[in-house]
Amino acid sequence: MKRVIIVGGGFAGINAAKKLGNKPGFQVTLIDRRNHHLFQPLLYQVAMAGLSPADIATPIRRLLAQYDNITVLMANVDKVNPKEKTIECDIGTYEFDYLIMACGSRHTYFGNDQWEEFAPGLKTINQATEIRRRVFTAFERAEAAQCEHQQRENLTFVVVGGGPTGVELAGSIGEMCKYTLSKDFHRVKVKNARVILLEAGPKILAAFDDKQSERARKDLEKLGVEVRLGKAVTHIDNDKVIVGNETIETKTVIWGAGVVAGRLGGTLGVDQDREKRIIVESNLSIKEYPYIFIAGDQANFTGKDGKPLPGMAPVAIQQGQYLAKLLINKEKGIDVPPFKYLDKGKMATIGRKSAIVDAGSFKVNGFMAWLIWLFIHILYLSGFKNKLFVFAQWGWSYLSYGRGARLITGKKWRFYDKDMQNGVK
Amino acid sequence: MKRVIIVGGGFAGINAAKKLGNKPGFQVTLIDRRNHHLFQPLLYQVAMAGLSPADIATPIRRLLAQYDNITVLMANVDKVNPKEKTIECDIGTYEFDYLIMACGSRHTYFGNDQWEEFAPGLKTINQATEIRRRVFTAFERAEAAQCEHQQRENLTFVVVGGGPTGVELAGSIGEMCKYTLSKDFHRVKVKNARVILLEAGPKILAAFDDKQSERARKDLEKLGVEVRLGKAVTHIDNDKVIVGNETIETKTVIWGAGVVAGRLGGTLGVDQDREKRIIVESNLSIKEYPYIFIAGDQANFTGKDGKPLPGMAPVAIQQGQYLAKLLINKEKGIDVPPFKYLDKGKMATIGRKSAIVDAGSFKVNGFMAWLIWLFIHILYLSGFKNKLFVFAQWGWSYLSYGRGARLITGKKWRFYDKDMQNGVK
Repeated sequence: MKRVIIVGGGFAGINAAKKLGNKPGFQVTLIDRRNHHLFQPLLYQVAMAGLSPADIATPIRRLLAQYDNITVLMANVDKVNPKEKTIECDIGTYEFDYLIMACGSRHTYFGNDQWEEFAPGLKTINQATEIRRRVFTAFERAEAAQCEHQQRENLTFVVVGGGPTGVELAGSIGEMCKYTLSKDFHRVKVKNARVILLEAGPKILAAFDDKQSERARKDLEKLGVEVRLGKAVTHIDNDKVIVGNETIETKTVIWGAGVVAGRLGGTLGVDQDREKRIIVESNLSIKEYPYIFIAGDQANFTGKDGKPLPGMAPVAIQQGQYLAKLLINKEKGIDVPPFKYLDKGKMATIGRKSAIVDAGSFKVNGFMAWLIWLFIHILYLSGFKNKLFVFAQWGWSYLSYGRGARLITGKKWRFYDKDMQNGVK
Repeated sequence: MKRVIIVGGGFAGINAAKKLGNKPGFQVTLIDRRNHHLFQPLLYQVAMAGLSPADIATPIRRLLAQYDNITVLMANVDKVNPKEKTIECDIGTYEFDYLIMACGSRHTYFGNDQWEEFAPGLKTINQATEIRRRVFTAFERAEAAQCEHQQRENLTFVVVGGGPTGVELAGSIGEMCKYTLSKDFHRVKVKNARVILLEAGPKILAAFDDKQSERARKDLEKLGVEVRLGKAVTHIDNDKVIVGNETIETKTVIWGAGVVAGRLGGTLGVDQDREKRIIVESNLSIKEYPYIFIAGDQANFTGKDGKPLPGMAPVAIQQGQYLAKLLINKEKGIDVPPFKYLDKGKMATIGRKSAIVDAGSFKVNGFMAWLIWLFIHILYLSGFKNKLFVFAQWGWSYLSYGRGARLITGKKWRFYDKDMQNGVK
């Protein structure tokens, strides 16, 4: 009986576990510090109040309940001892024969960690509801503002980073200001809100070709989003963002600019790249420790073009499935060829009716691309119930321009500045 | 133009506002410290992961968007100056001609505020998701436990208070242990969990007659809930509850035992009862200040039986509607008779297929009562979309025994005790 430990219940971990489920000869333990598997590609919809957290998150143990040889534990893993073949958690130390590390990635502020407080990233449910809290609180503040300056800074939203997440967020805020919220606020003109997307590189959605990237930029501008290219952010605080030599006064900044792999990889003491990803062999193992495998965002696997594969769900899913197959065959003494990524293409969405899809020779933009995007995301969403409900929610939102989950929750706050407390109205 | 300020967007406040909406001669401002109206009777379903927060909460400004004479503000009200006819908020001071205070109630620990940390109450969305976090974390802890004692204390759930909320919570936990979760945990027998409902009085659901109360107790016991009557809790901490001379070792305590009215009422300087409710005249005004009205849980209004009306949604709804009518007629110089509560009955639910309904001469128990409970709650749930979705969620949960929203979110935690970190497994 081989003991397999999987750290991380994301796309890579869940898919590895499922394929090892009920396979004779394997005793699998999946450890995650959260109790839920998250459908990350739709997390921005939670931040933008289109979906509820439970719509895109499923308890990991529910997903794996049918497999008797799998134990699911919620715990923090602190350290891997690769030579001793153990991992240390807050609930004890566990031994393994094979270890699959799939701990994902987190945001990086490129050495400016003090920005995090003012510009949260979007990787977890807590971060999504925090962004939701900030965005909708800003609208409330604007409605209650006692002077034009306060109104303006609260109606200015800055998204840093022109990757898929940044584009989705900026597009959604633009769309909300233009359609959803305009009737709900009686004092303030929500349509006058400014949404600014900052990208340090020469174009947004850099993974796409120039034509599609340009199309996305135009679609964003139709939603009222100002796209600024080619200048890096140099300062963020509670009141403003400085980019190039421009100061943007704003109360709401969202960070979508850079990621690094999870911290646990560092405890292995092996080669990592600049993004803290672990450099893996052709079968996703570590050179020094052939019984330890890395999958998903945490792995630096060189693709066909000589560059590392991107941190995308399809890569993680395929790597997780590959590793399960590898272990099963290994035990049977069968050789497995190196991992090969089957690239089915990439896509990005901009607001409620536009997207860009690039599947090699098949490229499509606009509404048709948005329908493809919608179809594929619902298809892949875990769990039949969620699929059904997300579909219904979207149908409803699409028809009604609604944002059903516009809740401000979390922190107790007294958010108004001292200088707002003046004058009898 | 009369300026009406409504403090509180609960059942009383929302209903008063709606009736004053687009009525000539009135300029209405509704202030709430939250942005959402909450359908409180179903809040326990959020705590028990049956529904998502957004299913039972709607943005207040959405509910009132169609009324041009209503401004909705999210703000904390600190003080009422009844003689000056002003209220002081964190966003400024506002003048009124009429004030409707409908600030609801909050939990009280009868002088033992130190218990709150260990035994949260259930009044807000944040509290509901906190209870959800604690309950489902306890199951996770039990699954990861390294000794029987830890397993047992994590699988013991104590609910304090045998009113409707306590009964709903205890019944739901019992039902989850018996049905929903048993397949998901492979190490621990969730069916062996203990659920204990503590009530200091001689019976649960004291507002009902002895026969119905007894029926509810039996239904709870069928779900595995131990009901303890007649003994008060004397101590609560992180590990245990002491009731009478018994010590119950537990990691999860939920408080549903007592409520007092919101703090703002105290700033008026008028008569309050022991539960901090303000004693009102027959038209819900305050004797000293006939232009200030109190509605909902915050009002002590003497009912037909000589006792104050209970803190229930129907009372709050009727009082809110009454006050709007009163003000409209007052401006026209028309006298309005005293407020009269039309008692349509009361109900309480126990788990997934039982309830008790008491509508005077019409009393019904069991599954039939549960269907009535279901129908009425969906009927009254605000907003067409929510109704539809809640109905669909329930249909699904009922058929699948599912708990779709089993997310552990909020706090970062390392929940395991020091003594769990031992031994290689």
